[in-house]
Amino acid sequence: MAAAALARRIGRSGVLPLCCRLPAWDRATRPPPSPLQPPGLPLAPCRSFSNNKIQVELDESSGVAMMKFKSPPVNSLSLEFLTEFSISLEKLENNRACRGVIITSALPKIFSSGLDITEMCGKSMEHYTEFWRAVQEMWLRLYGSNMVTVAAVNGSSPAGGCLVALSCDYRIMAENPKFSIGLNEAQLGIVAPFWFKDTFVNVVGHRVAERSLQLGSLHPAPEALKLGLVDELVPEEKLMEKAAAVMAQWLALPDHARQLTKTMMRKAVLDRLVAHREEDIKNFITFVSKESIQKSLRMYMEMLKKRKS
Amino acid sequence: MAAAALARRIGRSGVLPLCCRLPAWDRATRPPPSPLQPPGLPLAPCRSFSNNKIQVELDESSGVAMMKFKSPPVNSLSLEFLTEFSISLEKLENNRACRGVIITSALPKIFSSGLDITEMCGKSMEHYTEFWRAVQEMWLRLYGSNMVTVAAVNGSSPAGGCLVALSCDYRIMAENPKFSIGLNEAQLGIVAPFWFKDTFVNVVGHRVAERSLQLGSLHPAPEALKLGLVDELVPEEKLMEKAAAVMAQWLALPDHARQLTKTMMRKAVLDRLVAHREEDIKNFITFVSKESIQKSLRMYMEMLKKRKS
Amino acid sequence: MAAAALARRIGRSGVLPLCCRLPAWDRATRPPPSPLQPPGLPLAPCRSFSNNKIQVELDESSGVAMMKFKSPPVNSLSLEFLTEFSISLEKLENNRACRGVIITSALPKIFSSGLDITEMCGKSMEHYTEFWRAVQEMWLRLYGSNMVTVAAVNGSSPAGGCLVALSCDYRIMAENPKFSIGLNEAQLGIVAPFWFKDTFVNVVGHRVAERSLQLGSLHPAPEALKLGLVDELVPEEKLMEKAAAVMAQWLALPDHARQLTKTMMRKAVLDRLVAHREEDIKNFITFVSKESIQKSLRMYMEMLKKRKS
Repeated sequence: MAAAALARRIGRSGVLPLCCRLPAWDRATRPPPSPLQPPGLPLAPCRSFSNNKIQVELDESSGVAMMKFKSPPVNSLSLEFLTEFSISLEKLENNRACRGVIITSALPKIFSSGLDITEMCGKSMEHYTEFWRAVQEMWLRLYGSNMVTVAAVNGSSPAGGCLVALSCDYRIMAENPKFSIGLNEAQLGIVAPFWFKDTFVNVVGHRVAERSLQLGSLHPAPEALKLGLVDELVPEEKLMEKAAAVMAQWLALPDHARQLTKTMMRKAVLDRLVAHREEDIKNFITFVSKESIQKSLRMYMEMLKKRKS
Repeated sequence: MAAAALARRIGRSGVLPLCCRLPAWDRATRPPPSPLQPPGLPLAPCRSFSNNKIQVELDESSGVAMMKFKSPPVNSLSLEFLTEFSISLEKLENNRACRGVIITSALPKIFSSGLDITEMCGKSMEHYTEFWRAVQEMWLRLYGSNMVTVAAVNGSSPAGGCLVALSCDYRIMAENPKFSIGLNEAQLGIVAPFWFKDTFVNVVGHRVAERSLQLGSLHPAPEALKLGLVDELVPEEKLMEKAAAVMAQWLALPDHARQLTKTMMRKAVLDRLVAHREEDIKNFITFVSKESIQKSLRMYMEMLKKRKS
Repeated sequence: MAAAALARRIGRSGVLPLCCRLPAWDRATRPPPSPLQPPGLPLAPCRSFSNNKIQVELDESSGVAMMKFKSPPVNSLSLEFLTEFSISLEKLENNRACRGVIITSALPKIFSSGLDITEMCGKSMEHYTEFWRAVQEMWLRLYGSNMVTVAAVNGSSPAGGCLVALSCDYRIMAENPKFSIGLNEAQLGIVAPFWFKDTFVNVVGHRVAERSLQLGSLHPAPEALKLGLVDELVPEEKLMEKAAAVMAQWLALPDHARQLTKTMMRKAVLDRLVAHREEDIKNFITFVSKESIQKSLRMYMEMLKKRKS
């Protein structure tokens, strides 16, 4: 059952992707389609497309797409961002010309700041549900992607930003010690969901995860390398070159064997969220609806606003 | 069900702790209460208390308790010691002024020598049952504690002593290479219970655990650091200072988020013993009742007696 | 149930081993007995025996057997080789004089090249079934062996050859950087079975396994050491001396405690194959019967033939 659900999710059959010949999808004029139920548009070769938040360019000769987060000021994972992210991944996943994707940021100093707090504050139950489902959806697509996924972490990457990097096949980080990465939820008084934790444990092992999660640690790049949180550091100006080289190395493998191997390694953890998805949403809503949490979030947001002005 | 059991065990509700205004609990004059069924004494602020085997001091300003093993000659984990240990942990757990505990030894050169062999030799089935239940109880309380637990390992720590250290959140060891630590049960011809093994694997990973457990290795401090069995080494005279600094770092996190994170990381392993507790006791009794084991233990104890005299 | 199956498999009760007083078992003149149903021959002290593919010598004074792969050109794991391997392991397992086995190659530069491709090409369903069952059988015996098993890896060891090494208790490799080791199945367009993966993860952890399996990496000896794939490197001329020293260290432990500890560490992964054995065979047959796979294998074999001539 879980296996079937997984197959449905990561499979290519019958899912018609949004097409890049269309004008960039405009969130302002019509409601976003569910990433799992895209409208029945005709399939078309996909070269490059730019939405509001994420720019995607596919080099059909190499089969490698470049995905750049460009949502100032800090690439926070809003509902809109997450929806675009999932749709972009699905487009690429369904494009036979695309075999791998490099994920990076178009903004300086920040890869992604993680989940957008404004989505969790003063909104309706329906909104919280939709938001959390979009977070889950993004992770299921990225962690379960059949493509080779390389994170070129060219800035700090806390919380949900770190999850994005952890969900890729390989992580290269700019060797700037001012950039840090980690699942620092505990610092904000909240708890990383179990599937953030599962993803983390699969990368760094149980002990490092236990300590880092409890302390809500943000690890400077050199420490992140030492802990295995990222695979290598390179000077920032060589990041994209290195990412392309790593991608070429991974693409040298036959897709089918590599994909089946990846599924074998990740299926248990993917299945766990698929099996507990609704429960996980309920947990999030219960948590975020607490007056104490809402109060903290409001205070935190006001602090951020003052900082800006 | 397992979750409920866990909640009952580590929860604070309805369990009235022994109170530190009372004179130190005197084992000689009345039988020890079960750690799970403490008598209905009034709750009171707890500052410091000293029992026969363990000295506890709580600094209410920092919220940190110091727990010192003082059971000469080697802090062996007798039934009395284990009962005191569990009760002390429960007292602190139920004291809202206490947020963390540093565990160390008041004796030179030894942290704890592990389970007391005299408790396993020539005693009744009832005694073995009571003893093993006390070992389980201690571990369930310590590994599942809501408090921050730091082991300041100021001496050697074989077998059960190692388990105590492994069950804490953080391990600092005196950097004396004469001090060693490890689950060396195999050296004595016995087998570490599965939950010792689970705790070990969660700290050092499967491969290191497999090799170390099969060889019954006692790792000198520098090797223990290399294997991840302890988190850092410091000169012995700086051990307490360092432990306090580490504790302050962990206490900087909001309790609630840290505790939920800890539970998320440790619950699977705790649940496993809770689910197999009676079976685990039966296994112990069957093992320890064997004439061959009793003979070895008697010989070992006689050897120890001769050494003393 | 799984425990009972395991006990049956690794237990000694009622299984009469082939005896070394008999002439070397001659595959040409009679069909091989199933390793699980050896003929009812009388038990006898076993000193040394040589079959077609593997030479075994037991030093009864030390209790250590030396098992040398001698199947030119590359010790590939053919049905005949695997059957001999399982029978040899069973003989030793059932010989009370034997407590440990050192596994190495009698050929230069190669430990074992892994599964024999000719066994997978142009054969009947019955043959594929028999072959795959023999692969499973070998692993179940080796990974679940009660003996101390030390791999003296004196040459390259890809795919199934790597599995043999991974299934031992300890791996020493010649420090020649030209020798490499790894589960490189993905390079050939195939996927390592789940129990190869489980064995690998138990040795190197999830992250290293995920990356290495997806890339089908063959790690040169120094890298293999760094990743924990082997336990140590020594100059090739000191390999056997070192293997004997390591064996002596492991044999210093009481057998019973060491064996129970080993079972505790490996049982979950062994049970998993035992529970899914027939399913795993079906998967293999389905895969290998594909015309696309058969075509690749034929081309690969023709390439190998041309290279020889």
